[in-house]
Amino acid sequence: MSLDHDATTLGVRSEVGRLRKVLVCAPGLAHRRLTPSNADDLLFDDVMWVEMAQRDHADFVNKLRSRGVEVVELHDLLAETMAITEARDWLLDRKIIANEVGLGLLDDTRAFLGELKPRELTEYLIGGLSTADLPAEVRSGYLALARESTGVREYLMPPLPNTLYTRDTTCWLYGGVTLNPLYWPARHDETLLMKAVYRFHPDFAGAPVWWGDPERDWGLATFEGGDVMPVGNGVVLVGMSERTSRQAITQVAAALFAAGAAERVIVAGMPKLRAAMHLDTVFTFADRDVVTLYPHIMDGVHTFTLVPSDRDTGLDVIDEGDRSFVEVVAESLGLKQLRVIETGGDVYASERQQWDSGNNAVAVEPGVVFTYDRNTQTNTLLRRAGIEVITIVGAELGRGRGGGHCMTCPLIRDAVEF
Amino acid sequence: MSLDHDATTLGVRSEVGRLRKVLVCAPGLAHRRLTPSNADDLLFDDVMWVEMAQRDHADFVNKLRSRGVEVVELHDLLAETMAITEARDWLLDRKIIANEVGLGLLDDTRAFLGELKPRELTEYLIGGLSTADLPAEVRSGYLALARESTGVREYLMPPLPNTLYTRDTTCWLYGGVTLNPLYWPARHDETLLMKAVYRFHPDFAGAPVWWGDPERDWGLATFEGGDVMPVGNGVVLVGMSERTSRQAITQVAAALFAAGAAERVIVAGMPKLRAAMHLDTVFTFADRDVVTLYPHIMDGVHTFTLVPSDRDTGLDVIDEGDRSFVEVVAESLGLKQLRVIETGGDVYASERQQWDSGNNAVAVEPGVVFTYDRNTQTNTLLRRAGIEVITIVGAELGRGRGGGHCMTCPLIRDAVEF
Amino acid sequence: MSLDHDATTLGVRSEVGRLRKVLVCAPGLAHRRLTPSNADDLLFDDVMWVEMAQRDHADFVNKLRSRGVEVVELHDLLAETMAITEARDWLLDRKIIANEVGLGLLDDTRAFLGELKPRELTEYLIGGLSTADLPAEVRSGYLALARESTGVREYLMPPLPNTLYTRDTTCWLYGGVTLNPLYWPARHDETLLMKAVYRFHPDFAGAPVWWGDPERDWGLATFEGGDVMPVGNGVVLVGMSERTSRQAITQVAAALFAAGAAERVIVAGMPKLRAAMHLDTVFTFADRDVVTLYPHIMDGVHTFTLVPSDRDTGLDVIDEGDRSFVEVVAESLGLKQLRVIETGGDVYASERQQWDSGNNAVAVEPGVVFTYDRNTQTNTLLRRAGIEVITIVGAELGRGRGGGHCMTCPLIRDAVEF
Amino acid sequence: MSLDHDATTLGVRSEVGRLRKVLVCAPGLAHRRLTPSNADDLLFDDVMWVEMAQRDHADFVNKLRSRGVEVVELHDLLAETMAITEARDWLLDRKIIANEVGLGLLDDTRAFLGELKPRELTEYLIGGLSTADLPAEVRSGYLALARESTGVREYLMPPLPNTLYTRDTTCWLYGGVTLNPLYWPARHDETLLMKAVYRFHPDFAGAPVWWGDPERDWGLATFEGGDVMPVGNGVVLVGMSERTSRQAITQVAAALFAAGAAERVIVAGMPKLRAAMHLDTVFTFADRDVVTLYPHIMDGVHTFTLVPSDRDTGLDVIDEGDRSFVEVVAESLGLKQLRVIETGGDVYASERQQWDSGNNAVAVEPGVVFTYDRNTQTNTLLRRAGIEVITIVGAELGRGRGGGHCMTCPLIRDAVEF
Repeated sequence: MSLDHDATTLGVRSEVGRLRKVLVCAPGLAHRRLTPSNADDLLFDDVMWVEMAQRDHADFVNKLRSRGVEVVELHDLLAETMAITEARDWLLDRKIIANEVGLGLLDDTRAFLGELKPRELTEYLIGGLSTADLPAEVRSGYLALARESTGVREYLMPPLPNTLYTRDTTCWLYGGVTLNPLYWPARHDETLLMKAVYRFHPDFAGAPVWWGDPERDWGLATFEGGDVMPVGNGVVLVGMSERTSRQAITQVAAALFAAGAAERVIVAGMPKLRAAMHLDTVFTFADRDVVTLYPHIMDGVHTFTLVPSDRDTGLDVIDEGDRSFVEVVAESLGLKQLRVIETGGDVYASERQQWDSGNNAVAVEPGVVFTYDRNTQTNTLLRRAGIEVITIVGAELGRGRGGGHCMTCPLIRDAVEF
Repeated sequence: MSLDHDATTLGVRSEVGRLRKVLVCAPGLAHRRLTPSNADDLLFDDVMWVEMAQRDHADFVNKLRSRGVEVVELHDLLAETMAITEARDWLLDRKIIANEVGLGLLDDTRAFLGELKPRELTEYLIGGLSTADLPAEVRSGYLALARESTGVREYLMPPLPNTLYTRDTTCWLYGGVTLNPLYWPARHDETLLMKAVYRFHPDFAGAPVWWGDPERDWGLATFEGGDVMPVGNGVVLVGMSERTSRQAITQVAAALFAAGAAERVIVAGMPKLRAAMHLDTVFTFADRDVVTLYPHIMDGVHTFTLVPSDRDTGLDVIDEGDRSFVEVVAESLGLKQLRVIETGGDVYASERQQWDSGNNAVAVEPGVVFTYDRNTQTNTLLRRAGIEVITIVGAELGRGRGGGHCMTCPLIRDAVEF
Repeated sequence: MSLDHDATTLGVRSEVGRLRKVLVCAPGLAHRRLTPSNADDLLFDDVMWVEMAQRDHADFVNKLRSRGVEVVELHDLLAETMAITEARDWLLDRKIIANEVGLGLLDDTRAFLGELKPRELTEYLIGGLSTADLPAEVRSGYLALARESTGVREYLMPPLPNTLYTRDTTCWLYGGVTLNPLYWPARHDETLLMKAVYRFHPDFAGAPVWWGDPERDWGLATFEGGDVMPVGNGVVLVGMSERTSRQAITQVAAALFAAGAAERVIVAGMPKLRAAMHLDTVFTFADRDVVTLYPHIMDGVHTFTLVPSDRDTGLDVIDEGDRSFVEVVAESLGLKQLRVIETGGDVYASERQQWDSGNNAVAVEPGVVFTYDRNTQTNTLLRRAGIEVITIVGAELGRGRGGGHCMTCPLIRDAVEF
Repeated sequence: MSLDHDATTLGVRSEVGRLRKVLVCAPGLAHRRLTPSNADDLLFDDVMWVEMAQRDHADFVNKLRSRGVEVVELHDLLAETMAITEARDWLLDRKIIANEVGLGLLDDTRAFLGELKPRELTEYLIGGLSTADLPAEVRSGYLALARESTGVREYLMPPLPNTLYTRDTTCWLYGGVTLNPLYWPARHDETLLMKAVYRFHPDFAGAPVWWGDPERDWGLATFEGGDVMPVGNGVVLVGMSERTSRQAITQVAAALFAAGAAERVIVAGMPKLRAAMHLDTVFTFADRDVVTLYPHIMDGVHTFTLVPSDRDTGLDVIDEGDRSFVEVVAESLGLKQLRVIETGGDVYASERQQWDSGNNAVAVEPGVVFTYDRNTQTNTLLRRAGIEVITIVGAELGRGRGGGHCMTCPLIRDAVEF
């Protein structure tokens, strides 16, 4: 892989090369809608103090910027997109439909949204539109019906609090992007928002899309960026988990191979008993040859390697059997070995720190990572291994069970030499 | 509503008029795939002894037949459909796709299924196709990858054990049918099988379809037949529950009104705390003016009436406020009142019998219903009220938490006079 | 161990020797109190059709009797005990106390129970006494308070539906018995009832008690008969599970060693992830050298052997490390090997049959066992191995997740030769 | 009730009078033992960052002190108690027993603990003693057995992280104390530690004990301080919840009446569906006539009043029927009405703030309360009502679902005039 590329062209060539541009999403209205009753439906374990989460997220963004990273924020990006009439129409044509808003409320809802400024519209697109948000004169039998509905059906547009985890929705893999079909139906519309951005926003329009389209039904082929790592050297790592399926992985691999965008996809078959876990909750890179991992889970991974072939499917699957994931990855990168930093502390602390996203590091350059402040023991081990660790306040942000890696979607990242 | 109609034309004009033709689905391979581990994914509370469930289901079918009902069975119907080359190709083109089977296994799977007789193919379409079902020579890295997948992704075609509840998938409402988008993704393909039948089987092709199409994505507009009752007099009752949403109910009502097929849709807004319940688990008809219901839930229902209007949506929503559901229903049928038989026994027995589908009666003619044998107290109350009660052995069939009403999809049922 | 003993003296010398006398408990009022709401509190997965469960239990008892087993039933035994004034006073002095019945209801409750015949009293002792059972004139503020209480506190005496599993409460280990402190507080009073029997009933009074007393608090030392097997040759097998703790096991072993009643206790350390399981849900004997087991769990067992020692504790603990439980057991019995019959069928059927108590066989003599009818595949494997299998109808009885082994407490069983 | 009393004598005469002395317990080793796996067993919803929790707790203590409150801390108190040889022996005789530590480990454990300084011993008494804490030479088969045990049985003394909530374990009610039998077995030993303090510590020895003794088994009579409020005027409020039962409430009331310590006990029968909630999670006092409450739960409370009587039980129960709890309480205090401040914000915020202990205020004097910082909306409402609100940082401390009221056990609090 050549290291020569234009640092202003979208593309991600490694997990630890210089991070030049990244997409994040600040906490907001969607999180103020979270309650103990609806948190499960919206896939959150707990509610958060939104003002503090916003402060801590802003601090994270500032620190990224001070490291020279260009940070773009989803509300901003979407508001810019919604300022384009064609984009606004395109998105509302897909959101304000009988299947979501409900018949009888379409015209009033569209009329209400039509009056809003792009930024205001964006707040509701991400934060959700409740029946109480519509002006009083709209209230009618239809709204009463909506208020009696269970779960998120009480909304005209449901909140999308998981936009906080921009990592999952789209993935830059080398020079192109995937628009991911997410596992939980409650998250599907996140990808639709991103498609609007990629289709209409001038900074994104025209990007090569390897795979995925939120306007199609992907069945069991679900794919989430928390499981995906373009580590460089033509290699992509993918966790096969509850949320990222073989049906999707093989399609993405075939698309990458067909485009010549990658040469090898290494699949970490996650242990079935802990099916919900993304790969990046138990394994991330801190330097070109340094990973932090949670051994209790990673020891149970079954590894496969996908390589291009002449078959009509375009790929072969190699069962790596008893070989460890770390060993297979090291070999694929041409490294003798990967240095491994396990989650720190005794058996209690280690389990606690994995839970608190202790292994969910995101690098801004080789050897410089962001992690949550609360994982002091793992952070110490990283520092002892020569890694520079910059901390994010995790008291509130960490309650959604995602860390710095989950909250960032790299848009431009340099390659590294192996 | 006129009582004159051709008793051989598909159509359901009441809940208790003479049942002339009904669709059921026998337990089988799909239920042998159920285990304590996967039961949750497949929406079953418990595993069943399949041979006994088959015996008890066959007995239920025999008793229906002895009452003059023509019973068609889904495996038979689908096998007849799969004997039509065009239908077989149509269905396999939609089932044997990368999003479900997984890339790299498409050709082998299609080739394997292509060799099968229609009946054998049907067994796998309903019962699921596991990696172990393919011949040994197919086994490869792809299959290893499949076996490491979590949940139903290990299957090439997932089992569809909820076909047992034919009530949910399609609903005849007077002279036409709905092809329902079911709530749980694990059940979506049931409707696809039914579409194949309605499109290609000579006895079904050409039926008017009011609403629904399994080839489209319906978002939050989900609709399940357990919530739907065409009671006659141009009235349809619909439970608004976790599974049947206002987004769907309003569309179906609009379609019925537009076609002149119904004049009134009465919505039972189910209490939010027990969101999962279909209306027919707590309320069914036993005679033209007799209902059996579980008061603990029905007392919490909030009622709405949908009527045709000149609006562009074609309907108005009337919030019935504090009026009881039973009262609103009685009035819509021109009855002074409905006689109500509550779930029998003391507070313990009543809760137990609701749980055991004690309120899930299905009528074969006015005053003659099928229920499970185990709900002896509710059955006694029905009998005391002059209802003839024929029992189904529920020891195994009842474990899926559905009774006679859930297991039957009426195809032809006469109207009753009010 | 000598095989000579008086066949009329209480004592259990093996798992498969001739069963001469056994204690069971018929389903009854306690099971009619079970509802979907309280089943969790009362440790049942599902409600049962009590009349059918009674029929099937009676059939089980009849078949035991036709095999020459003397069967005593707990209601009978307790009624006989309650006919003894001293016993009645002793038990009511311990049940009708402020901590259980509640202050202000003591006198009325005691007076009500004082009027009852022994058999009627027994019904309430096992079946529970609800506020509705007291005569109307007692009703007062106290009763209103009771009715507002949560869970089983609404009862004056809570139901004891788990008496069905007589195996757990007391264990005959060779010539003496243990009165077990059960894990769940909801079951503690079962042992109190048994103490009344062992203290006052003429057929039981004077039996040597190795360990346990329901009038004392045993803290973490809990012990359940489903984990305990006196297999003969001076050996006792004990599952160390969620319910049977090392704190109890070591005390029982020390007591047995001190009395010279056993020479070796082999501990099956159950896998932590499936903590709730008794050993007899995954491992039982069918003949002197034949066991049926569920490999998916038994493969994860860590084995220890306890032997007498001169230490002050009276025992040493040997960590058997990687040796399999079956191998250690075989050696302790002087057998070259145990023949193993695994739960039958493919991966789905095997998991289903373990769940349905497929491994929970109870022998009436070497090579003759009772199992549930529904586990046809495991039963077939047992028969092919030369075991005579007599079936119990499990449709209702099996819903509490216990089989023939759980429902029987052997009182007299012969030794076998090894 | 006279307001004259010695401000140095233990006793609590109101909920809002000047708080002179209070017992708290700092986070520590017990919380470092918490993991996602054992949190359920130990009754915590989530793990916490212990160092930060300690900082925030210290800040809370400092603020209490700056308000003139004498704060005693449980580790300190217990260490002082453990410095008394008799007390140490008394406690270890009750903790280092076969039922808890396990046979075969008693001597080594006692010897190990015998070498420790009082403070070190205290750390383990509260924080738990794991097998890894014993010196290497002790390791043997017994320890291996312990390590294979499930849940807290792996400990020689289990951690007691709920000591953080000193409110629950003991309650000063006017001039005497209760030593509460707590609902969950995992918390029983907290009361044993407190008994050691009350029996041996010079500042506590000799206090009148109204009721309770951790050395006895209290059956269903469980009682937790979070449900108990001595509001003054001879009145005690008690929540009847999952954790505080009528069996205990009536006994405590009878003891208080017999001693002339109270004249009226008002029982809030908590709604059954939310059984786990203490009264103080939904209702606390902020001033002599101001309460903050969560209406969604409090609206469902059924109220009873217990008063002294000549009956042999010493009390009568008055069913208050439809009267609201707030009305009954106001009347008992001779107030025309209580001013009510409901949990703040819209329906989402209100539910979030109740969850985050927004109603769990603790007063240091009339009109001055401590609450968590995160409940900004409820805090604003309190301030608007003229209450001075001092905040506690709740990011970590709040994860155990208890606030300032739960974390404080008042030892001396003045009466207020009504």
